[in-house]
Amino acid sequence: MADIEKRIARKMDKALLQFGMLKKNDHVIIGLSGGKDSLALSYHLARKAAAGYPVSFTIEAVHVRTDFATYPVGDDFLKIVESWGLKVTVIDVAVEDRLKEGCKLNCWWCSTQRRLELAKYAGSTGAAKIALGHHLDDILETFLMNMAARGEMSTMLPTMSYDRYPYTVIRPLAWTQKAEIEDFVKEMGLESFACSCEWDTRSPRKAARRALEELTSGSAGKKDAMFRALSNPVNRYLPVTVSERI
Amino acid sequence: MADIEKRIARKMDKALLQFGMLKKNDHVIIGLSGGKDSLALSYHLARKAAAGYPVSFTIEAVHVRTDFATYPVGDDFLKIVESWGLKVTVIDVAVEDRLKEGCKLNCWWCSTQRRLELAKYAGSTGAAKIALGHHLDDILETFLMNMAARGEMSTMLPTMSYDRYPYTVIRPLAWTQKAEIEDFVKEMGLESFACSCEWDTRSPRKAARRALEELTSGSAGKKDAMFRALSNPVNRYLPVTVSERI
Repeated sequence: MADIEKRIARKMDKALLQFGMLKKNDHVIIGLSGGKDSLALSYHLARKAAAGYPVSFTIEAVHVRTDFATYPVGDDFLKIVESWGLKVTVIDVAVEDRLKEGCKLNCWWCSTQRRLELAKYAGSTGAAKIALGHHLDDILETFLMNMAARGEMSTMLPTMSYDRYPYTVIRPLAWTQKAEIEDFVKEMGLESFACSCEWDTRSPRKAARRALEELTSGSAGKKDAMFRALSNPVNRYLPVTVSERI
Repeated sequence: MADIEKRIARKMDKALLQFGMLKKNDHVIIGLSGGKDSLALSYHLARKAAAGYPVSFTIEAVHVRTDFATYPVGDDFLKIVESWGLKVTVIDVAVEDRLKEGCKLNCWWCSTQRRLELAKYAGSTGAAKIALGHHLDDILETFLMNMAARGEMSTMLPTMSYDRYPYTVIRPLAWTQKAEIEDFVKEMGLESFACSCEWDTRSPRKAARRALEELTSGSAGKKDAMFRALSNPVNRYLPVTVSERI
């Protein structure tokens, strides 16, 4: 097994354990966009499901295909993921068609619609978990964006449960860095098969990405430290207003 | 009064109030380096002390001069600050001389030595507060640095009290942005008189500064939001490990 494969497997174990992602006999739906992240997620979860992760669980992948999707390098990824022993279901959804009159398509709308389909599918199978491919860099970028745009310290959670829904969203790549995923897909000879669309500008996220690179100089250790920081608020050294202090 | 002067005066009021910086009859020692920040701080605190801030307080400024200080534009700032009605005391300290054999001078050592002298002086006068010129950008940069270097969410506080010391450090410019201070000193025709030294590399802070600019695109609104975020941790959207969750 290549070093990078081992490293990601280890980091996934760490996330699964630290954030209590899997319980015995969980059925897990993987959100499979075809991008690097979801390919790495699918590969590693498939190996763990097959090779006897400490608790047994079952998985399958779901690819939500939109009405404006274009696949510059084809959709061979469906077969590749199946070759890893995963059942892959394709759900067609008319993201553009669902827009209300006068509303413009954007990334938020598209991702919400896709997530909705995943959730419906999860409900139909009684799955306990939906696994998404977000990695450590995504989580840090979201934290920085939420600070600057919303004035709050918050981010997407490695494990997110809902009061209103029976499933829990898990992000097993929470401890894995973007650069590691890139190394892995390169090592595996995989391409990114993700749908490319003209809407993908998301300049706030791009700004957050540049900020993260400036701050860490791309250092993996510094990004790890930032991720640890998210669970490590030192309240004594965070400003509180007088009224809160009392 | 120029708009920028009013704006800073208002923002200082906000910080003084929100973080409970001043109590009736406090004596305040201002740390006066001669840089833009401490000049703006001195000017505005002097006005508030003279013009009847809701609670009455007294102030004086202290300039700690080091043995390796060079003042490229002279030390006229001492007279300028005195012209604002402030008593200015100069304390000479042998920062370089105090170094132990084999230790290299650095910014941390220098600032610690200078702070020590300020603290001693505050003790000798029975001052309740030491006011420092750190502004909003400084606080945000420190937050980002602490995340990446220490793995914790923390920063320097607008109001910092100590168990071991009788005085409290206050940062009345906590809500004031660096760009506003720059506008102010320009408007006032002041120069930065701060000691320039060859040690001022501090690359982690420079990286944090670039990260902050990337993230906010220099937007004052986004920096304000980030400062608010420091008092606004949304615990539901911050990762906790399973053991903490239980």
